[in-house]
Amino acid sequence: MKNMKRIKCIIAYDGTNFLGYQIQNQGRTVQGELEKVLKRMHKGERIRVYASGRTDTHVHALGQVIHFDSPLDLRVENWQKALNAQLPADISIVDVQFVPDTFHARYSSIGKEYHYRVLLKKERDPFLRNYSYHFPYELNMKAMREGMNYFLGTHNFTSFSSAKSTVENRVRTIERFEVIEKADELVFQIRGNGFLYNMVRIIVGTVLEVGIGKRAPSEIPTILDKKDRKFAGKTVPGCGLYLYQVFYKEDIQNF
Amino acid sequence: MKNMKRIKCIIAYDGTNFLGYQIQNQGRTVQGELEKVLKRMHKGERIRVYASGRTDTHVHALGQVIHFDSPLDLRVENWQKALNAQLPADISIVDVQFVPDTFHARYSSIGKEYHYRVLLKKERDPFLRNYSYHFPYELNMKAMREGMNYFLGTHNFTSFSSAKSTVENRVRTIERFEVIEKADELVFQIRGNGFLYNMVRIIVGTVLEVGIGKRAPSEIPTILDKKDRKFAGKTVPGCGLYLYQVFYKEDIQNF
Repeated sequence: MKNMKRIKCIIAYDGTNFLGYQIQNQGRTVQGELEKVLKRMHKGERIRVYASGRTDTHVHALGQVIHFDSPLDLRVENWQKALNAQLPADISIVDVQFVPDTFHARYSSIGKEYHYRVLLKKERDPFLRNYSYHFPYELNMKAMREGMNYFLGTHNFTSFSSAKSTVENRVRTIERFEVIEKADELVFQIRGNGFLYNMVRIIVGTVLEVGIGKRAPSEIPTILDKKDRKFAGKTVPGCGLYLYQVFYKEDIQNF
Repeated sequence: MKNMKRIKCIIAYDGTNFLGYQIQNQGRTVQGELEKVLKRMHKGERIRVYASGRTDTHVHALGQVIHFDSPLDLRVENWQKALNAQLPADISIVDVQFVPDTFHARYSSIGKEYHYRVLLKKERDPFLRNYSYHFPYELNMKAMREGMNYFLGTHNFTSFSSAKSTVENRVRTIERFEVIEKADELVFQIRGNGFLYNMVRIIVGTVLEVGIGKRAPSEIPTILDKKDRKFAGKTVPGCGLYLYQVFYKEDIQNF
């Protein structure tokens, strides 16, 4: 058996034209495109790609992490060049590293950061239609920040995960949750040890409902206690969501 | 006959999914989408839309100007709302004004400004693939600016227009031509009294060839003198080009 190397890549993609990250029988996926290129580079052999987690339809990534094993003898710069030369223009390899066999993009991950962009200006912007959720309403920033603080720490997030989710353990820890005010946009930045299905989108949807005065900030702990999806707010669209960074033990100094 | 009003709109569009501005037998166009909405608003009657000029496949607009005549009795705010509510998300009505019958989006125009975005960073950016031309080469900014200065003033631009163009008078005046340096991008800004087919894209392509040292800045006047397309540089892709503003007499204070 050949000497296999484990390769870790940080990748970015524009989710607009993907049915999400994970390979499916039909439709264009990020994993599908990656494996297609790797298969070509390995003379028809399937090289399985593992990611830190899936992203949904239209969700973007600035710092998704994947790994795969290969017998090819290429230097990191050449892996990056070869992959970028063959991948479609909406996926880009940002960084390549050789890692020990014990590294796993999903199981070694100790946390993630997501960003969610909200476009506040009155008229929609044709250039941001796929990149920022248009929500042109007056928002009470103080109330939103008050509501956001209730998410910090360790909670059972059942109320803030898709009713379709089948994961047993719904307890997660949020380390940071902030909102940055830009000229016409808000950027929610949320960092935690893990996220359930639709969790960021339901949290942001609920916080926006606090912002427009539909809910009081103090309702958040009550919703958490209910452990039932139907008490939380709407799931905001995938197009505003960015997987910003995945954290691993070796990055702990940045965490 | 009903009392007709002439309506001037400033519109923005993301050119990515359009086969250009002008209506065609097949394919999606900006004019086609505008006229489809106006027809619906006028009970099936065709309302013809006139623009300041065409834009090509994938070319964007931040300040394209159109006009049309309508018997409908709507206030400007309601024109904007009604059109934006029905137009697809990649076209947006930025401003609406009632204008005298003597106004014509094309014939009243006294000048235009185009911007051209060039992405310089080494790796391509999946989020800018449709919005900025990736040209990751070392550029001599001083030589480029020297070359750019030769375009200022009044010249016959035959060498810098598509060989397919059938316009007789190829004399145009360039009032301003600058390049702004951003973090990873250059933005060329060019303003003139009119532009021939592909003129901005051939000028920018030629200036980039000066930037990489393929041509000397002093070749520009020679190329202008030749009055032959084959002496100028490559036509850069449409995706980097933005129709930024159209000028009319009443805007002369901004010109």
